[in-house]
Amino acid sequence: MTKKSSAYEQAGVRLESNEQTIDLIKEAVKSTYNSNVLEGIGAFGGLYEFTQVETHKQPVLVSSTDSIGTKTKLASRMNHYQTVGFDIVNHCTNDILVQGAKPLFFLDYLAASRLEPELSAEIVTSVASACKDVGAVLIGGELAEMPGVYLEDEFDLVGTIVGLVDKGNVVTGESIAAGDKVMALMSGGLQTNGFSLARKVMEPFLEDDFAGHTVGLELLTPHRHYLHPVTKLLEVGLIKGMAHITGGGIPGNLPRILPEGLGAKITKACWPMPEIFKLIETKGQLDEDEMYHVFNMGAGFLIVVDEHSAVDVQQFAGEEVYEIGEIMPGNGVSLVQS
Amino acid sequence: MTKKSSAYEQAGVRLESNEQTIDLIKEAVKSTYNSNVLEGIGAFGGLYEFTQVETHKQPVLVSSTDSIGTKTKLASRMNHYQTVGFDIVNHCTNDILVQGAKPLFFLDYLAASRLEPELSAEIVTSVASACKDVGAVLIGGELAEMPGVYLEDEFDLVGTIVGLVDKGNVVTGESIAAGDKVMALMSGGLQTNGFSLARKVMEPFLEDDFAGHTVGLELLTPHRHYLHPVTKLLEVGLIKGMAHITGGGIPGNLPRILPEGLGAKITKACWPMPEIFKLIETKGQLDEDEMYHVFNMGAGFLIVVDEHSAVDVQQFAGEEVYEIGEIMPGNGVSLVQS
Repeated sequence: MTKKSSAYEQAGVRLESNEQTIDLIKEAVKSTYNSNVLEGIGAFGGLYEFTQVETHKQPVLVSSTDSIGTKTKLASRMNHYQTVGFDIVNHCTNDILVQGAKPLFFLDYLAASRLEPELSAEIVTSVASACKDVGAVLIGGELAEMPGVYLEDEFDLVGTIVGLVDKGNVVTGESIAAGDKVMALMSGGLQTNGFSLARKVMEPFLEDDFAGHTVGLELLTPHRHYLHPVTKLLEVGLIKGMAHITGGGIPGNLPRILPEGLGAKITKACWPMPEIFKLIETKGQLDEDEMYHVFNMGAGFLIVVDEHSAVDVQQFAGEEVYEIGEIMPGNGVSLVQS
Repeated sequence: MTKKSSAYEQAGVRLESNEQTIDLIKEAVKSTYNSNVLEGIGAFGGLYEFTQVETHKQPVLVSSTDSIGTKTKLASRMNHYQTVGFDIVNHCTNDILVQGAKPLFFLDYLAASRLEPELSAEIVTSVASACKDVGAVLIGGELAEMPGVYLEDEFDLVGTIVGLVDKGNVVTGESIAAGDKVMALMSGGLQTNGFSLARKVMEPFLEDDFAGHTVGLELLTPHRHYLHPVTKLLEVGLIKGMAHITGGGIPGNLPRILPEGLGAKITKACWPMPEIFKLIETKGQLDEDEMYHVFNMGAGFLIVVDEHSAVDVQQFAGEEVYEIGEIMPGNGVSLVQS
């Protein structure tokens, strides 16, 4: 270290560290760029030329900010960081997809007590890879070392997405009616919710064998995005409403899109619940009903369609979609076994 | 608590707490809305109808994400939270203003080990007030309780801004030439940078009297925005380049906008350095040169103008602007006393 920065160093801030990280991530970030990007990394703000005015009569920007919660703690515990970028990008992508929007660009924020350049680069590179997958430009980001705010070896990863939908294509759920069917796309795991509970319960078993790897790695299964099946279904006009099943489970999220006076009956036996949820319930001696109020239980993304469209959905989605319930007069979600 | 949520509760997550906070902030958030907002709080993503296609031939969206660093620690230490929203919103506003962009909307992310609804509401309300001041809609946000990631009583506050500029009006600094003048708008304080060092040095003196209040409150002086003077100067076409003086001080930020082969000579005696910087330097026995590499030293926002425009700048800005230096062949910033 030069004498110049010694006092700042001693106060716990290392400017060089960020510069090293930026060198390591530069190519991955640039690989997300498209012709809309006017300037690159290093500028104060990211510039995205909004050329879509030509294709969108009444463009609506849909944005969302979120983090992956204490899934970061499990990533640290398992020393497995290469999928957390997919968690945050896909989580945000799904949050705007429910309104019919497709990603334009993304910004990430990575903070910890100390940021080791190699580790930060691994995380941001996973963010960049995930952005490429959903067609989002990684237009900006921030690396923040905050000694005394974060616990040692822990980090937070925050993302903000901005997407686009034409006003006439915003999906609101307002046309949902009694008799409509609720269909589910499969998450394959916890996505990014319920980790405080899952970690508490599963901590002693993280290194146990599970499905060819460990319980810990199974819990880290990345949050998937539902962009491809949903895009196909939107194109053929089959979707009346969508819900991304995050914190609060199906009962906490599906009602958010239902018109006043409508609820839903969901039948648990209608979709294959991944084994990991059973394991959490058993090991934690948890109430099954609570499980459904915390976790997605495998039904990561719900689509509400006309009762006559269920067959078409299965044809057009390009993947398995399960009919799991029905819209009913009332309010809230009632969960029945079969 | 109901039995239902007991296990989740015990794992440290309180869903009701967020709902209470949302009730408390609802009105403040809505007060930032304008006719561009299509849906309110509670939706998965915030919807902003982009009607500016009528007024902007080649719209460019400029975005930035940042936090206020360990200024949050000082806010906690002083139990003074009502200005942190101004810090994050104004910081982000300035980061896109340097490219000529004005705010459209903003998203905030507040995270801590535990979030008390009243405290969270105080912080988010300050974010909303700051958004109103700069004309940004507070279109989205997230509250995250992350036990085991954040140290007790500490928090992080992250913001993302999206602004707009017409492509022809993007300010890049590319026309800057040797002989141009560097002018400064005054920050009035540390803004949001250098707090790890400032806190380390000033910790024993936080309750000391200073300018009618305490040293601690003086350090918390909110980050100001430069929207009004800069807008006036942009309207009359006087600005060739701008730099927001954040981490790294003038030497770390001004060169980012200078064309290859150009540097700047900055004369420290040309602007009034706020007393607080002198106090930090003295109490910390810090090297003066390091001070200028960490803090803005009062010169919070720099404008580069043609040498003949300096007088006009002072006339149109609507506030005091100091001529503090000159663009020269070379590279980097040389700081001279007088």
